[in-house]
Amino acid sequence: MAKDVEGHHGEFSAKDYTDPPPAPLFDAEELGKWSFYRALIAEFIATLLFLYVTVATVIGYKASTDPNKVSSDAVNCGGVGILGIAWAFGGMIFILVYCTAGISGGHINPAVTFGLFLARKVSLVRAVLYMVAQCLGAICGVGLVKSFQKAYYNRYGGGANSLNDGYSKGTGLAAEIIGTFVLVYTVFAATDPKRNARDSHVPVSTELTPSLLLPLSSSHGFPSGWGISPVLAPLPIGFAVFMVHLATIPITGTGINPARSFGAAVIYNKDKPWDDHWIFWVGPFIGAAIAAFYHQYILRAGAVKALGSFRSNPHV
Amino acid sequence: MAKDVEGHHGEFSAKDYTDPPPAPLFDAEELGKWSFYRALIAEFIATLLFLYVTVATVIGYKASTDPNKVSSDAVNCGGVGILGIAWAFGGMIFILVYCTAGISGGHINPAVTFGLFLARKVSLVRAVLYMVAQCLGAICGVGLVKSFQKAYYNRYGGGANSLNDGYSKGTGLAAEIIGTFVLVYTVFAATDPKRNARDSHVPVSTELTPSLLLPLSSSHGFPSGWGISPVLAPLPIGFAVFMVHLATIPITGTGINPARSFGAAVIYNKDKPWDDHWIFWVGPFIGAAIAAFYHQYILRAGAVKALGSFRSNPHV
Amino acid sequence: MAKDVEGHHGEFSAKDYTDPPPAPLFDAEELGKWSFYRALIAEFIATLLFLYVTVATVIGYKASTDPNKVSSDAVNCGGVGILGIAWAFGGMIFILVYCTAGISGGHINPAVTFGLFLARKVSLVRAVLYMVAQCLGAICGVGLVKSFQKAYYNRYGGGANSLNDGYSKGTGLAAEIIGTFVLVYTVFAATDPKRNARDSHVPVSTELTPSLLLPLSSSHGFPSGWGISPVLAPLPIGFAVFMVHLATIPITGTGINPARSFGAAVIYNKDKPWDDHWIFWVGPFIGAAIAAFYHQYILRAGAVKALGSFRSNPHV
Amino acid sequence: MAKDVEGHHGEFSAKDYTDPPPAPLFDAEELGKWSFYRALIAEFIATLLFLYVTVATVIGYKASTDPNKVSSDAVNCGGVGILGIAWAFGGMIFILVYCTAGISGGHINPAVTFGLFLARKVSLVRAVLYMVAQCLGAICGVGLVKSFQKAYYNRYGGGANSLNDGYSKGTGLAAEIIGTFVLVYTVFAATDPKRNARDSHVPVSTELTPSLLLPLSSSHGFPSGWGISPVLAPLPIGFAVFMVHLATIPITGTGINPARSFGAAVIYNKDKPWDDHWIFWVGPFIGAAIAAFYHQYILRAGAVKALGSFRSNPHV
Repeated sequence: MAKDVEGHHGEFSAKDYTDPPPAPLFDAEELGKWSFYRALIAEFIATLLFLYVTVATVIGYKASTDPNKVSSDAVNCGGVGILGIAWAFGGMIFILVYCTAGISGGHINPAVTFGLFLARKVSLVRAVLYMVAQCLGAICGVGLVKSFQKAYYNRYGGGANSLNDGYSKGTGLAAEIIGTFVLVYTVFAATDPKRNARDSHVPVSTELTPSLLLPLSSSHGFPSGWGISPVLAPLPIGFAVFMVHLATIPITGTGINPARSFGAAVIYNKDKPWDDHWIFWVGPFIGAAIAAFYHQYILRAGAVKALGSFRSNPHV
Repeated sequence: MAKDVEGHHGEFSAKDYTDPPPAPLFDAEELGKWSFYRALIAEFIATLLFLYVTVATVIGYKASTDPNKVSSDAVNCGGVGILGIAWAFGGMIFILVYCTAGISGGHINPAVTFGLFLARKVSLVRAVLYMVAQCLGAICGVGLVKSFQKAYYNRYGGGANSLNDGYSKGTGLAAEIIGTFVLVYTVFAATDPKRNARDSHVPVSTELTPSLLLPLSSSHGFPSGWGISPVLAPLPIGFAVFMVHLATIPITGTGINPARSFGAAVIYNKDKPWDDHWIFWVGPFIGAAIAAFYHQYILRAGAVKALGSFRSNPHV
Repeated sequence: MAKDVEGHHGEFSAKDYTDPPPAPLFDAEELGKWSFYRALIAEFIATLLFLYVTVATVIGYKASTDPNKVSSDAVNCGGVGILGIAWAFGGMIFILVYCTAGISGGHINPAVTFGLFLARKVSLVRAVLYMVAQCLGAICGVGLVKSFQKAYYNRYGGGANSLNDGYSKGTGLAAEIIGTFVLVYTVFAATDPKRNARDSHVPVSTELTPSLLLPLSSSHGFPSGWGISPVLAPLPIGFAVFMVHLATIPITGTGINPARSFGAAVIYNKDKPWDDHWIFWVGPFIGAAIAAFYHQYILRAGAVKALGSFRSNPHV
Repeated sequence: MAKDVEGHHGEFSAKDYTDPPPAPLFDAEELGKWSFYRALIAEFIATLLFLYVTVATVIGYKASTDPNKVSSDAVNCGGVGILGIAWAFGGMIFILVYCTAGISGGHINPAVTFGLFLARKVSLVRAVLYMVAQCLGAICGVGLVKSFQKAYYNRYGGGANSLNDGYSKGTGLAAEIIGTFVLVYTVFAATDPKRNARDSHVPVSTELTPSLLLPLSSSHGFPSGWGISPVLAPLPIGFAVFMVHLATIPITGTGINPARSFGAAVIYNKDKPWDDHWIFWVGPFIGAAIAAFYHQYILRAGAVKALGSFRSNPHV
């Protein structure tokens, strides 16, 4: 069996996964396909729904905890709390990535698109148009909330991101960088074909043991990682968003998604969010770039060398 | 291989999934099957349990946060909060869809049934009888809560849906439309055979790369999407309900399920919920129709064209 | 293909699943196996951990919300809340069913054992000894909490189940019956081999379409349901426990597990919990019996007839 | 390979799973591989992110519930609560185990590494270097929080673990032992190849029924457990951490991870956490050792005997 593998590195070779070729910067062909425009529509709708649900939750929460609001059944803890807000952001990303992964890849976030562009998973044209669709969707989503919640929208900050009192611009930027790193790192991990294939074999153990690896992949030709893990990927991605919100809401309100920050800034349109707005583009893009670098050059590059060392392994 | 695919669109063709034929409007045959009546029973029981657990949670929460109720261990935050209520609705849908998916399809919601009817997944007779079973189940479920919670049921609003103060009928209607759209869109996405098949190949990437697509589906004949995703579908569907409740409880209390609203209105039987009651039928049905349209005409129709363009792809 | 299926109902026949034979009432052979005693140990340890974590959470929550306790950082909402308590019960069942499913079946609850005994999934001897192991484990688990929390254990009710003020014995009994029905129904649904097999084919659609059913099961002999769903079963089971606690904590504190109620009653040992204690055995056992009946005679019996009608279906 | 295993139980024999050979104490070969150093980097980064997110959540929560802090929108329940803190710890472990399982095994916790070392899953050299990487990562993660939250870090206890008032050292030690047992037991259960294989066949039933066991594993050579369960393992592991935090935060703040306690103690650097610090190494290591013993000698040893008794079973 080992000889077969050495002989030809075919579709299901010892690598146990297939790396798609890098996306071109400009792919004229994709502009001619309906699936491309359908993907833009899906990103627009998903980002719209994302902002609508999450900002409505934020405004609803603040309304219900306002000590100045006199209401017969107002109780201090009547809102969903910051925990509920964090769930809204994470849970919406879970279901929207789940729903759109097969249509557009389920980015719903310019920072994710940027990270996947750097890793050459999407073309430049696609990346730019995705970001435009996401920003337009975000504006529409927040606009819906404003039109529904006229009485409360402006009073409760409009869901816009800005630095909270007591935090410097550097701290806010760093918090956005790390938060986006957590998210984009999870995206890469959850969708890496190699990781999925390997994960199936040695989950908590520590090495690719070739004697386990080869039979599974080559004896019956079932690349198990492809079939299963993608369907599960949305859950850890949603949890990553949930977690970062728990940690970062007190600092910046948590952006880690430039479209989300941009949409809220446009609709709320006050000075403070606009003054801080650069943080919510620069931070997420830097964080996504670091995550792409970490995944491609530390984790993946190493994997290639490791597989090299396995091939000289006497077990094979 | 490409030639084979062009030649005959057999069981596992390039389409990689099989669309069931559209359901007829009236299927006399299904009326003769025990499985049809079993499905009605399952919908009735599931909707009963859904309303029992969720309305009991609502009443229990309001009882524990009532500032007028004097109790030795009453604390303001003793209840489960709106977050707990949202979990109750979402979590019950998760387990009930999980439990009844194999029996009745796990609708538990006339809006879901309506959306699937529009997409020709169920016959008209089945759709109507499902809705009747759901409404009866909902009435019985809320009735149970009233009989258990005599002291609190009427005092705390009976779990009935109505517009909260400060929101117009238009806002309530729009909120119900969008909320139901999120739910029914997730139902379609989670159960679409094509989405599942495709999702298995290119989760966060952006295109069906035919060189990956074909070997997996045709080399060993395993339509991976069918086997795996359905079992996972209840989780995102439950989360969709959870999310919409977080966003919409402050506006309408969140219907997005006409049976849920109807059952509570019948048992509570006060003017205000009845006056607003049309919102909780019209809104969800419009939302479900839009979701069915979006899925069938934007996402699915495009996919056919996209596959067409792949066939002329030099890689195949 | 249809002829093949009619001809021999072999291992992977048109039924698409295999029903294990009913367990005998008394199985002498199992008493001679180490795996039987290992299962008893696993049930004992799992129930111990279940009660330890959940009762510790209850006591910790009540301590932190006690308005009479003066503490520098005491805040009214410092505890985990009823939502956190419900998570503790549901989450522990999730992980313990996950951990012990392969060893003992992961019952951790005499009502679940009773339901599975009625459905002839376990022998009488095994059922009785499981219940003994579960009750001993529960006593030890609550005993640990009492020894750790001397200062608070008795003051905060010891985690014991009893009727709350304002609810009649009949209401409490009914709440326990319905709550246990939800749990045991989920257990049956999640572990039914037929459901799993069928679920893989027609998740939200409404019928077994034979043209889809047969190829998947007979063309490559992979009974997809078996391999996948069991691993997922613990999640809906844990959620069922979570949901029932949200609804029933205000009424009885939520038993739905006689071992849990018994362990707390033994260690707390006050009159009130002992007076109500029969509710927490009778209710769960009735609920489990109804769930077993519903699953075996309504859902499963019907399925056999439905399959019969499929065989005469012209499509096959 | 066949010869290695008993007589010849071919690649997919009646055992239905393959035990990897025990890891050597010192494996010179692994020191020469890039994959080894990549694993150390992954553990370092993962533990850094774990501490950053969780301690930031703790500090943010305490800041928002401080009754002495005067703020325009300060509400008592504005923080995420202990429930949110427990989610932060459990959720981060979920996503980090998910992300690093394929690279380093996803330990992120010296107690987990110690347990896996005792079970001979990792070499001594790897275990020691993992612990060093984890502790360094934890220090950096808490250091980031301190640098971001200068104003609040020291005032709110710095996320350091110490015994709360009213609990003896023995109680704290016991709570850490049991808590770590729950976690490491879940890790073993979730990653045990045999458990996964068996689990696929008889989820809630109680015995390995050989007539079911054999066809699935030997008729088409698909060891179903390997491919599926590892991807799901992170979820119960994360939930175990979540659950233990709910129960143990009132007692010790919950360590169950010596790196987490060490990192916070180094950065906070006050007497009280250092005085109690031994508890957070001794307790987790004892708990992990008991879990390794329980899994290897009670659950696994028994399984071997049970399989022995199956072989003499007339059905086979």
